[in-house]
Amino acid sequence: MSFGESHGAAIGCVVDGCLPNIELDESIIQKDLARRKPGQSAMTTPRAENDACKILSGVYKGKTLGTPIAVVVENLDQHSDDYNDFADKYRPSHADYTYDAKFGFRDPRGGGRSSARETIARVIAGSIAKKCLGDSVEIRAWVESVHSISMPFAENIPSIEDVESSPMRCPHKATSEKMVEFIKKIKSEGESVGGVIHCKISGIRVGLGEPSFDKLSAELAKAMMSIPAVKGFEIGAGFASARLFGSLNNDSFYAENGKVKTRTNNAGGILGGISSGQTIDFKVAFKPTATITKEQTTIDKNLNETKIIGKGRHDPCVLPRAVPIVEAMAAIVLFDFALIQNSRTNFSI
Amino acid sequence: MSFGESHGAAIGCVVDGCLPNIELDESIIQKDLARRKPGQSAMTTPRAENDACKILSGVYKGKTLGTPIAVVVENLDQHSDDYNDFADKYRPSHADYTYDAKFGFRDPRGGGRSSARETIARVIAGSIAKKCLGDSVEIRAWVESVHSISMPFAENIPSIEDVESSPMRCPHKATSEKMVEFIKKIKSEGESVGGVIHCKISGIRVGLGEPSFDKLSAELAKAMMSIPAVKGFEIGAGFASARLFGSLNNDSFYAENGKVKTRTNNAGGILGGISSGQTIDFKVAFKPTATITKEQTTIDKNLNETKIIGKGRHDPCVLPRAVPIVEAMAAIVLFDFALIQNSRTNFSI
Amino acid sequence: MSFGESHGAAIGCVVDGCLPNIELDESIIQKDLARRKPGQSAMTTPRAENDACKILSGVYKGKTLGTPIAVVVENLDQHSDDYNDFADKYRPSHADYTYDAKFGFRDPRGGGRSSARETIARVIAGSIAKKCLGDSVEIRAWVESVHSISMPFAENIPSIEDVESSPMRCPHKATSEKMVEFIKKIKSEGESVGGVIHCKISGIRVGLGEPSFDKLSAELAKAMMSIPAVKGFEIGAGFASARLFGSLNNDSFYAENGKVKTRTNNAGGILGGISSGQTIDFKVAFKPTATITKEQTTIDKNLNETKIIGKGRHDPCVLPRAVPIVEAMAAIVLFDFALIQNSRTNFSI
Amino acid sequence: MSFGESHGAAIGCVVDGCLPNIELDESIIQKDLARRKPGQSAMTTPRAENDACKILSGVYKGKTLGTPIAVVVENLDQHSDDYNDFADKYRPSHADYTYDAKFGFRDPRGGGRSSARETIARVIAGSIAKKCLGDSVEIRAWVESVHSISMPFAENIPSIEDVESSPMRCPHKATSEKMVEFIKKIKSEGESVGGVIHCKISGIRVGLGEPSFDKLSAELAKAMMSIPAVKGFEIGAGFASARLFGSLNNDSFYAENGKVKTRTNNAGGILGGISSGQTIDFKVAFKPTATITKEQTTIDKNLNETKIIGKGRHDPCVLPRAVPIVEAMAAIVLFDFALIQNSRTNFSI
Repeated sequence: MSFGESHGAAIGCVVDGCLPNIELDESIIQKDLARRKPGQSAMTTPRAENDACKILSGVYKGKTLGTPIAVVVENLDQHSDDYNDFADKYRPSHADYTYDAKFGFRDPRGGGRSSARETIARVIAGSIAKKCLGDSVEIRAWVESVHSISMPFAENIPSIEDVESSPMRCPHKATSEKMVEFIKKIKSEGESVGGVIHCKISGIRVGLGEPSFDKLSAELAKAMMSIPAVKGFEIGAGFASARLFGSLNNDSFYAENGKVKTRTNNAGGILGGISSGQTIDFKVAFKPTATITKEQTTIDKNLNETKIIGKGRHDPCVLPRAVPIVEAMAAIVLFDFALIQNSRTNFSI
Repeated sequence: MSFGESHGAAIGCVVDGCLPNIELDESIIQKDLARRKPGQSAMTTPRAENDACKILSGVYKGKTLGTPIAVVVENLDQHSDDYNDFADKYRPSHADYTYDAKFGFRDPRGGGRSSARETIARVIAGSIAKKCLGDSVEIRAWVESVHSISMPFAENIPSIEDVESSPMRCPHKATSEKMVEFIKKIKSEGESVGGVIHCKISGIRVGLGEPSFDKLSAELAKAMMSIPAVKGFEIGAGFASARLFGSLNNDSFYAENGKVKTRTNNAGGILGGISSGQTIDFKVAFKPTATITKEQTTIDKNLNETKIIGKGRHDPCVLPRAVPIVEAMAAIVLFDFALIQNSRTNFSI
Repeated sequence: MSFGESHGAAIGCVVDGCLPNIELDESIIQKDLARRKPGQSAMTTPRAENDACKILSGVYKGKTLGTPIAVVVENLDQHSDDYNDFADKYRPSHADYTYDAKFGFRDPRGGGRSSARETIARVIAGSIAKKCLGDSVEIRAWVESVHSISMPFAENIPSIEDVESSPMRCPHKATSEKMVEFIKKIKSEGESVGGVIHCKISGIRVGLGEPSFDKLSAELAKAMMSIPAVKGFEIGAGFASARLFGSLNNDSFYAENGKVKTRTNNAGGILGGISSGQTIDFKVAFKPTATITKEQTTIDKNLNETKIIGKGRHDPCVLPRAVPIVEAMAAIVLFDFALIQNSRTNFSI
Repeated sequence: MSFGESHGAAIGCVVDGCLPNIELDESIIQKDLARRKPGQSAMTTPRAENDACKILSGVYKGKTLGTPIAVVVENLDQHSDDYNDFADKYRPSHADYTYDAKFGFRDPRGGGRSSARETIARVIAGSIAKKCLGDSVEIRAWVESVHSISMPFAENIPSIEDVESSPMRCPHKATSEKMVEFIKKIKSEGESVGGVIHCKISGIRVGLGEPSFDKLSAELAKAMMSIPAVKGFEIGAGFASARLFGSLNNDSFYAENGKVKTRTNNAGGILGGISSGQTIDFKVAFKPTATITKEQTTIDKNLNETKIIGKGRHDPCVLPRAVPIVEAMAAIVLFDFALIQNSRTNFSI
């Protein structure tokens, strides 16, 4: 359960269902928030968010109690005035109009509830979920492409060092540099770009996910599509599998050291909605940032035509900052399914 | 809530939360089931499913009571013997292994719970949801591509006649014929193919969908990804928007006859997770049918290597029969969100 | 998820979340249904319900698959004509009026969805829950009082034999006989009576129930209050504890053979909403059957005053047949909480 | 969703599903919190809780946004040292032992999560629910009895003035004075007492509540039983109806000015789980405060026998402060059901 508007008093979440006796304090969460923080490089918004989190409940002497964990981040450094111009204008491809129509009015400051600042709550909850999942699970996301610039295919999961050493969170150095150059250029032109994030997860046991509506792949899709700016999701071979013959797309089983494995992984680690023990592998498409500094035509709330030029601090490309958000949402989904599966495993009364 | 294994006594569902006083009887549901039915053409499995549905509750004198509607379809014409060979073998890219690992054992007849026959329940529920949404909402899905054969871009929503007159449910006649030829050929080679279904929905008011985790786009993604064989989902421009500049991807607002519209619809009719009143527009990628009649290598449950050749009646390409399933899942999601939004609209105590 | 109207095609339920690999077949469920069945004695309605259940899904070769279990009971021996008189009249203390007002119309035959015949679904689900809980858990309910006739206080849980050998399901023989005489008398006068069912549960480990809103005691209360005709619920000393001093009401802890016990059990086996390992102990108050054969004043749906005399087959006292329903609802609640608690116990990924 | 331990950083809640455009600010909530506050009289704990609430989200310019409303109350004036003695001892009829057993450890300061201080969150949420329900709904609870002292039967709903002018929140002046004397006496003896709260609600339209498991009466029971120290719940005639004949218990319908009414209200305003438009009427039994200053026998976490004497600031009788909590929980339940019923009323797409 998350809450908070961009320029309200605070952003935060309450995480219920956490395991008891798990080590947790603000510093653990803060490390993940630092990766989401704006102002990490020229590629991201200069909004200097401190984003210092505070745990309000559910933790005692550095351990989780098993009861709801509330964490808040106060909103500081707000430039609400930046948004005065926009209060009555519907910014193209933003949620101003739909919020107005749905709720009758909205908080226009910084996008209010529809601001991507809401993802702070996701990173916090993901941080807690990762602690519950433990060290044997590795969730790694990275920027695979920005606009038309893609990194070459890589068989293995990139190392965290290779991802984090790139300002783009693209583990392929040459590609990362090209992306940086490209974004600097389009930023100076008032433009924005999108791209694709790739995520692989190892260490997940076979058996997570429910058969019909609550497939692991379905919940991952929902979780990713709920992230602001996401427009597409694919698991394993995804859209490409629509162009493969069955004999090529099928992943042959074999056994190695008593473990079931597949020679290919077009399924992306999920069969019939249930984790197969292979690497979970999915991609997420992000649209270009809706806020651009080029002039655009739009209407105001009285339906009069008007012009708009983006102000406010924003990212020309959200991808690098979205990497920890994708990881966080994956961790939340996986931990939820792990709890469900654990409920029926070794059941005892 | 759906239930049923492929070769068990029955498949069915219980739909709770339906509006009262809505016209409903078996014939209305049967019409939708007929579109999902196997054996409609050479493109689909010859399994001659009668799929006659029976309403067990929730309807009185042809009107819904507002209480749970249970509908069942008995499983007849089962050739369970076709599956004897497979009881101990893990069919590649099927859910045999993950079900065994998750539950300890499984019903091997016809894929048991993981059979696509489970989608009968989805079509039934979708039929009820469509009746609740009413005639002003038009949900139209069609086969846009099969393997590498794609129909040309079409601006408008195809007519139901154009879709249904094609055995492929592809409204572009020439493309449909090419697809038919192609599938006949690959079938004779023991192969299978996948493809992409496109869906557009008109008549949805602005305001459906919830701001953060339960975005309309996120629930649509989950619903589609929960359909057997689906590997990808994209809304509006989807993965292509990752390659557009912001100024091109943004949809400019304008007003026409007091209605808010956008000049393009890259957003796919959803802004900030909330329907904008524009046409909802998404695509769903299906992998090739996992069952093929070519020999494949796999393992049995004792982890011994073995060979497998597909038997059982199956579709070389599931796309045409998946069209009504995509429409059904869309209807279910939309009606659920319509109920939620209606709960706060014109609230009275 | 339950469904079904009294005189519709069938009553049934779908049970999701059941453990896999649990022994289950129709005969196990039928045994519990037999205890709920009407026509067991002069004390109950002569409606000769066969109530033969059929498992439609979720069970294979006598074992649960872990997927949804659908079970239906067809409605036979319906005397819908008995209700023709009532179609437009609002029977006092029945749900005719509120259903009409809520849904706009209703199925008047046999009370439709509001009929106590709906409890068939509860008994079926309870039967499955009991199998999942296993033999170490003993759930025993009995009729403690009917109108002003109460059995004497009993320290121990009565045996199933003592309960079942009484047509009243009152384990105290002399009281049971008095109840029988009393009910025969009031029945001949066209009257009905209520009473109190007592339920004790042993074998529940410490730790079931959630801290705040989802206390074990709260969910038990909801479950019991959802049974038709129930008007009150109390746990442990219940309303009597409102008249005790703290020093008398408090249950002193002591240890015996390494087990924590309490010298009294005013808490009814639940502390802070969580099972304490002591016997769970609660009481449920049932109102007298609303249908009586005495003439009553009421109104019809046009709000005109009218008279009504009960017809249809009904019980002058529902208590004996409600005993298995109370046990079933308790089993459902306990198994749900056992799953939740098991999800965090011995968690492994 | 509530969170917070007694001596943690804060207590609070997040309320999702609130109507947009409802007037709300801290002062509105604070008024309700003042009624729950300790230290209102000699009858309550001297803990001087400031309980100043702060709205963190969901409200803009004094109006609700329709998005989650987070409200927190910081924990000040904590005397955690009072609880040092108890960290290892299991206080009788407290949740120390069950929390330890369930979660492996607990926050012993002030009862941690099991403290009645958690009810702050309930009062906050109730305050918001009452604003959404509007002024036409009147929810009035009062103390009807303390130990063996009961006020006389009153036909009408007591006025808020009569309730609030009594330090006991008992609207019958003479009874209130007797209760005060009695509690002063038992407090001096180190004792505690319980009692019964009566609640009546007017202005609720016919139709709230769902037919089977989610009856309005069932959810009210759950909500009340989830309040700390509650041991019993009854609706309308409740346990007394178990001793009435059907002809006496049944509430005859009549019509007045086109409205359906009943001559008696033994049903407590709910028929078949659905509000009938009559006054909703229920009672809640509270046990005596578990903390007493008399010496008690108990065990410590190593299962050694020990003695315990209550310290910490506590109420000898929680009833007066529980009145606003009962009202709050009723408001939450009613608003939830009003949303559900509104979703199907005047449905439009």
